[in-house]
Amino acid sequence: MKCGEMPEPLQLLKGQFMYQTKAFSAATATSPLTSVAIPRRDPKDRDVQIEILFCGICNSDLHAARNEWKDIMPTTYPIVPGHEIVGRVTEVGSAVTKFKPGDLAAVGCMVDSDQSCPNCKAGLENFCPNATFTFNSPDKHGTAPMTYGGYSDSIVVDEHFVLSVPDNLDLAGTAPLLCAGITTYSPMRHHGVTKGNKVGVIGLGGLGHMGVKFAHAFGAHTVVFTTSPKKKEDALRLGADEVVVSTNANEMKSHASTFDFILDTVAVDHDINQYLNLLRLDGNLTIVGVPSKPLALSSFALIIGRRSVSGSNIGGIAETQEMLGFCGQHNITSDVEVIPIQKVNEAYERLAKSDVKYRFSIDMASLKSE
Amino acid sequence: MKCGEMPEPLQLLKGQFMYQTKAFSAATATSPLTSVAIPRRDPKDRDVQIEILFCGICNSDLHAARNEWKDIMPTTYPIVPGHEIVGRVTEVGSAVTKFKPGDLAAVGCMVDSDQSCPNCKAGLENFCPNATFTFNSPDKHGTAPMTYGGYSDSIVVDEHFVLSVPDNLDLAGTAPLLCAGITTYSPMRHHGVTKGNKVGVIGLGGLGHMGVKFAHAFGAHTVVFTTSPKKKEDALRLGADEVVVSTNANEMKSHASTFDFILDTVAVDHDINQYLNLLRLDGNLTIVGVPSKPLALSSFALIIGRRSVSGSNIGGIAETQEMLGFCGQHNITSDVEVIPIQKVNEAYERLAKSDVKYRFSIDMASLKSE
Repeated sequence: MKCGEMPEPLQLLKGQFMYQTKAFSAATATSPLTSVAIPRRDPKDRDVQIEILFCGICNSDLHAARNEWKDIMPTTYPIVPGHEIVGRVTEVGSAVTKFKPGDLAAVGCMVDSDQSCPNCKAGLENFCPNATFTFNSPDKHGTAPMTYGGYSDSIVVDEHFVLSVPDNLDLAGTAPLLCAGITTYSPMRHHGVTKGNKVGVIGLGGLGHMGVKFAHAFGAHTVVFTTSPKKKEDALRLGADEVVVSTNANEMKSHASTFDFILDTVAVDHDINQYLNLLRLDGNLTIVGVPSKPLALSSFALIIGRRSVSGSNIGGIAETQEMLGFCGQHNITSDVEVIPIQKVNEAYERLAKSDVKYRFSIDMASLKSE
Repeated sequence: MKCGEMPEPLQLLKGQFMYQTKAFSAATATSPLTSVAIPRRDPKDRDVQIEILFCGICNSDLHAARNEWKDIMPTTYPIVPGHEIVGRVTEVGSAVTKFKPGDLAAVGCMVDSDQSCPNCKAGLENFCPNATFTFNSPDKHGTAPMTYGGYSDSIVVDEHFVLSVPDNLDLAGTAPLLCAGITTYSPMRHHGVTKGNKVGVIGLGGLGHMGVKFAHAFGAHTVVFTTSPKKKEDALRLGADEVVVSTNANEMKSHASTFDFILDTVAVDHDINQYLNLLRLDGNLTIVGVPSKPLALSSFALIIGRRSVSGSNIGGIAETQEMLGFCGQHNITSDVEVIPIQKVNEAYERLAKSDVKYRFSIDMASLKSE
């Protein structure tokens, strides 16, 4: 298919205001993902239609597919996961100004918001109470009951939620920037991480390895905390200046009260207080992993040094675009293992065991053979 | 005794670079406090000697006297507690410029620091790694093994750590400002509490009732959270605009995502996540109570809304002086029950049951009869 051409199946339902495209979907919390056809709306005036080239696999995909966050965000089936989307524009609506067919484009965790609340007006669509997520959100266009994500041939998204992709980046490694990238970039920017700072990154997985790359690129002295001494070499390769094995109490103690900022990417239970004790006066630890149970928080660790613990949740659209520009400038992408969509279920099993360096990226060309 | 005169016992050891003064002291973790004589150094060049008129009873006094914080700050006996000190200057050293005999003066939680570290230079002596606390710190002057606090006739303190007291304030109610006051004032200033903000105060005890007075004086819409509906009337009298019974889930829910700042003064285990959910985007909850066990912290509650939890620990000397000026201007003092020193052990028992509205203040004139 050449740029600007519509793939044949997409034209079937044109004129009926929607078309069908291929996707991989889970029918229940225990079903494997399998090939299905899903509807997409025809591009409206402000819409951009994108042929998806790569889609990253995020831990959220796995949690949602298995309904593991049912208490907070229950899953409606069938679900088509995927919110780390990179592709090429195939068609644009009449009012679209930023994109034209053939352009590289990306979509992250959101495809819509009310665009009128104070958070949206502040460029923080990620905190809009009426945000529409890329998958498993009610589809306000009515094309389907719920939004369907990026494990798919094609997607149609309001121009405001479509990002431009720098030309110089490897596309497979760019896909995870749309979630893992912005999730780690945003809190560092928010807390002013800069040259001369001492920054810690707890955990070296999909999020952590991006945190290391960004902290290094911001010019910070970057320290990786890990429970696995064998990760040391890789952490240094990714940009860390030091690696601390967090089970070594003496090594931890030698860093007491010296960190400006620590990014906590660990999604299972762990002792945050040992890290809080490493923060200097007014230092901050930001949580971006989501352990399913509450963490134990020592009041003393906060009070001594006026320290703080924060949370952070992806980023706004403007900041996501800024992040992609920063990545283009510093040639930052995610370290990925590229897989065909037919291996997605196997990839989920491996992801659940953190067996990937450091993110899976699905080559969506593989979906064409389904 | 008239201003400027030395009380007789104080002159006994003059010329030997120290003198004796009366105090109340605990000999062990389980002993009642009893009358003793303690040494104080003769005022050196930069020192201010103060006749103590009132000393507040802080929960820290109780914890330290009973060695309840032994894992973090073990107590050396005998201990003379008291760090909410108000009195009148009796003598000053030759280099003292800010005070003269007869002046009102106050001393809080610190009597010295290295005055050279970055924190001291930033006016944050409260975070100096070499701070000398008013009691139970090694006495670097060697007058006694440890510093002795304000349950005493007289104290000698470096001018830098002596505060001026506005003339218009009730002195018994001023004493608790030196700890309970600055502990609640400082985090509100640090987080920019101002007119138009919505501010919550969790708990209505010694700290909480000061938090309400300050939040109200800053012009914030002030909401008290309490588990005791019977405290409502008093909370409104102290300056609250609303009182929320925290066990009422519907009432709590109606305040979701609306608070700019919440001050948490509760020193026993409690659910902070129900309060985090009440913070708006970028809202902060600051902990000033010190529960002995870790609190359960929900990552989700922080991530949704980029919220943060901080600690705060008293305040620097300049800010403490600023707070006293603010109190003078707004006529703010602590609500106190004045007791003679002979009732201190009974007061400790009542304090352990939170049976005081809202702080005990010891009239130190009572010590003269010992």
